[in-house]
Amino acid sequence: MSTDSPFAVPYDDPFGVHNLPYGVFRTAGRPQPRIGVRFGGRVLDAGAAARAVGAPAEVSGLLSAPLLNPLLAAGRPAWTRVRAALTEWLTGEQHRAAVGPLLVPLADVALDLPFEVADYVDFYASEHHAVNVGRIFRAGADPLTPNWKHLPIGYHGRAGTVVVSGSPVVRPCGQRRAGGEDAPSYGPSLRLDVEAELGFVVGGATGRGSRVAMDGADEHVFGVCLLNDWSARDVQAWEYVPLGPFLGKSFATSVSPWVVPLDALAHARTAPPPRDTPLLPYLDDAAAPPRGLDIAMELRLNGHTVSRPPFAAMYWTYAQMLAHMTVNGASLRPGDLFASGTVSGPEPDSVGALIELTHGGQRPVALPDGSTRAFLEDGDEVVITGSAPGPGGVRVGLGEVAGRVEPARD
Amino acid sequence: MSTDSPFAVPYDDPFGVHNLPYGVFRTAGRPQPRIGVRFGGRVLDAGAAARAVGAPAEVSGLLSAPLLNPLLAAGRPAWTRVRAALTEWLTGEQHRAAVGPLLVPLADVALDLPFEVADYVDFYASEHHAVNVGRIFRAGADPLTPNWKHLPIGYHGRAGTVVVSGSPVVRPCGQRRAGGEDAPSYGPSLRLDVEAELGFVVGGATGRGSRVAMDGADEHVFGVCLLNDWSARDVQAWEYVPLGPFLGKSFATSVSPWVVPLDALAHARTAPPPRDTPLLPYLDDAAAPPRGLDIAMELRLNGHTVSRPPFAAMYWTYAQMLAHMTVNGASLRPGDLFASGTVSGPEPDSVGALIELTHGGQRPVALPDGSTRAFLEDGDEVVITGSAPGPGGVRVGLGEVAGRVEPARD
Repeated sequence: MSTDSPFAVPYDDPFGVHNLPYGVFRTAGRPQPRIGVRFGGRVLDAGAAARAVGAPAEVSGLLSAPLLNPLLAAGRPAWTRVRAALTEWLTGEQHRAAVGPLLVPLADVALDLPFEVADYVDFYASEHHAVNVGRIFRAGADPLTPNWKHLPIGYHGRAGTVVVSGSPVVRPCGQRRAGGEDAPSYGPSLRLDVEAELGFVVGGATGRGSRVAMDGADEHVFGVCLLNDWSARDVQAWEYVPLGPFLGKSFATSVSPWVVPLDALAHARTAPPPRDTPLLPYLDDAAAPPRGLDIAMELRLNGHTVSRPPFAAMYWTYAQMLAHMTVNGASLRPGDLFASGTVSGPEPDSVGALIELTHGGQRPVALPDGSTRAFLEDGDEVVITGSAPGPGGVRVGLGEVAGRVEPARD
Repeated sequence: MSTDSPFAVPYDDPFGVHNLPYGVFRTAGRPQPRIGVRFGGRVLDAGAAARAVGAPAEVSGLLSAPLLNPLLAAGRPAWTRVRAALTEWLTGEQHRAAVGPLLVPLADVALDLPFEVADYVDFYASEHHAVNVGRIFRAGADPLTPNWKHLPIGYHGRAGTVVVSGSPVVRPCGQRRAGGEDAPSYGPSLRLDVEAELGFVVGGATGRGSRVAMDGADEHVFGVCLLNDWSARDVQAWEYVPLGPFLGKSFATSVSPWVVPLDALAHARTAPPPRDTPLLPYLDDAAAPPRGLDIAMELRLNGHTVSRPPFAAMYWTYAQMLAHMTVNGASLRPGDLFASGTVSGPEPDSVGALIELTHGGQRPVALPDGSTRAFLEDGDEVVITGSAPGPGGVRVGLGEVAGRVEPARD
């Protein structure tokens, strides 16, 4: 096999055959969106590959859709069959002639939002983040509210403004009240921030009135993506009592273009932090398989790494989040997306938001060009990357979620 | 015209030709969902009517969909053309032979959720409700938070659990903390409540980064429905600080099956209550056309009217809600639904939730069968009705949103 071969992916490539994340892509020559599977530096046209190798109708049908929702709807057994088929096509000598021409260089594709988001829920699962932000938003009070250690706090966000990595983010306008003022003022947000998070993509529908227990979570979590929950802190601070964040968040939420299958993260499983508060049975994971995830993240501002948030430090697991989200009988739809909330570790340089990194804007972060940032300026580019342990010491790449701030519009 | 004629709808029927609300229906003989328009006690099979009279392709296409979303997407000028066409078909002698057989008795149809809900936002627009609930949830503090008179407070709800009137509501389970306890307990909600609201159905998409000013609201509000925002008060009280309502609301939100066009509510427009706090320009409606709505609502529990909430008493108008919801550049999609929040008037028997009617459960309401209710019991049926002034002294019917409480599931 020559090194020019599209199959010549080094064994330690973070997008090797142990990963195989799903996305949706277009090319200049064929602008119709279709499902792609990343393999090294290329994208497999998955539907075309299924047809080229004569795959079973189920696999071919699910991979020939213009987005991931039919695959999400098909459920865990189908996900296993599709992943096995993709692995065979990319590793079996007998498929090379058919599949090789369908591996398109990354440079030749545009990546779309890979699925239609049904409902979007954002959690608040990092104790370090909750403490750091609680000190800023509720100075003088206990930073953790009394419920925090008893349940994974979450709220619904705006599904219609979830966008794919690379989409520009227009600085939002809104109301904020400056310190000492009685009345609010209006204008572009002066405290535009990011939140480095992990998103969980849900598959398989459930009916109203049913619940997904922790041990059923893996049946309904198809995979993960990186997520940036852009936040206007001044808008948020003024609006959020008593009904929670609204316009401070709803202008944009960016996700990475690749959904990494949960199956690719088997080596990333790790025990969550010790629980110091007894949990009600539906959330008690003391005897459960470990469902923490050892995912290393990086937060980059204009190319400079400002923080390395460790997902392994998250207090609540995805299984707890899903069990809690459905304990009241709320149904799930394929394409539901739930996010972890800001990933912050215990160290000053392991926090996932500028408001924490700069202590509420009091200690701006220095960039290599000599400038400093308390919050984001117009033109700033934020990139969040992530990777997890894979088999045999290799890494599983989550890719990146990127976005540049555009000036507010009149 | 005989009184048996499907066209013999009395001039003062609340579903006369001045109303013409849209829904989606099925019949035993033809189970495919399709768009229906209510006329008196019948439902016009709108797509079939369009074909029968040889309507233009645009009108016929929009009315031949299995749900309202394509019509919602088409925008205000198309809504005007479609409504004019329907009016002509139902009033023009020349169409009677073609249209008459397509008017199906209400008793013969099943009504579906009329549109796929994109994002669902719930506001908190009644000052009376906010004061009443603030006293209960935040005893000792000012019942209105400092932001309340400056902006219409809102939050995102769960779109996937919006259901049509008649859908049963399973009592939700969840965490709640009893008074005096340190730790929460788990079980079926003990304080299941309703919220009588009005829902606004959005049409016409906007892009991220754009805003809908108050004077553009009528271009994007297709119509209204009745809405019951079922609420588990014990779950809500424990979970809602700091990120707002989540599981206390997300198990079910019921809507009426008929979407009444905004065009049918021209005679219901009224000035909102006087504003006692100066508003920022994007919300200042002092010089705007009146966009309050004089809609009379009734809240019935097991057939007994327990309250008459007046929508005219709402502090914030739909135009202010929409202007606020998009002021940060959040985009709109056809099928977005935003609700008013509980409609409560100033009188003890004009409030839209049991928690207000019973003073937090302290003063149960008496029912004619001799029983009392602090909150809902299993088997209880809640019906919310509404109507508005129409032309020439007739009423515009909004129909009803109904739901019965089923016992919690293990």
